Amino acid sequence: MSEIPVIAFSAWSGTGKTTFIEHLIPELKARGLRLAVIKHDAHRFEIDREGKDSWRFTNAGADVTVISSDEKTALIEQRGLAVSELMARIHDVDLILAEGYHQEGFPTIGISRADTGKGFRIPASACIALITDESSIGADTHKIPVFSLTAYAQVADFILSYHHL
Amino acid sequence: MSEIPVIAFSAWSGTGKTTFIEHLIPELKARGLRLAVIKHDAHRFEIDREGKDSWRFTNAGADVTVISSDEKTALIEQRGLAVSELMARIHDVDLILAEGYHQEGFPTIGISRADTGKGFRIPASACIALITDESSIGADTHKIPVFSLTAYAQVADFILSYHHL
Repeated sequence: MSEIPVIAFSAWSGTGKTTFIEHLIPELKARGLRLAVIKHDAHRFEIDREGKDSWRFTNAGADVTVISSDEKTALIEQRGLAVSELMARIHDVDLILAEGYHQEGFPTIGISRADTGKGFRIPASACIALITDESSIGADTHKIPVFSLTAYAQVADFILSYHHL
Repeated sequence: MSEIPVIAFSAWSGTGKTTFIEHLIPELKARGLRLAVIKHDAHRFEIDREGKDSWRFTNAGADVTVISSDEKTALIEQRGLAVSELMARIHDVDLILAEGYHQEGFPTIGISRADTGKGFRIPASACIALITDESSIGADTHKIPVFSLTAYAQVADFILSYHHL
């Protein structure tokens, strides 16, 4: 398992995890961190483009295809990976944000939005902080920090503090 | 540096390296190997699609974005990588085929096609085998094996033999 610190985000589908992370990234970058984001996608996803060399190699049966230019590298692997395997492929970042890996024992921030009516996906007691617009939930409710759904800067500061970055 | 055996292919642009590798892959797969292909791309390349979650994370500033499903994993890193760094990200394959990495000291197969008029890109003396349709070049010319431009099965057998796979 990698030594790189991880923060996971847990929420029911439709709560806005991806959007929150998308806004959190520039806040963390502005604080000087090199960042990786890992996302578990339950669906098939398309990343490659028909006819490109990477597509040709993959289509021909390559288990792993890597295309690298002077400014970008893409690796496509034709199997799902355990989290420990994902971690072994991530290098040279200060922090990993994880979406959809809430059962891996990572420090986890729970997100809920009142209008979904679903609450948190994992118990608040299993979280290190909460992000929510539910007015009934305050910092005293679970004795952990509570942030609003747009508190990107504050959550960035919290993460840095949590991991001593 | 990885312990995984590598075979590099060297040729001038337009000779047909990508096409040869594309046909070689199923031959190697049929021999039971798990394979990676790495390609250096001198140009900018697009691998992601606007609006997809991976694109959103990358666009927001993530240095590394990983999307993983149960059957596929994609990693996009926003910088060029040295070959040793590429190797550190490749796991669980028996053989790596390299296109465009002819100055890294890998065992290299040179390819030439008569109608390009360009010959080999690196001296035959630096190659472990040649692939060509130039009738003036035979196995005795450089004391290394010479294959035709469509000898995919024979080249696959040669690679297995070369690396004792």
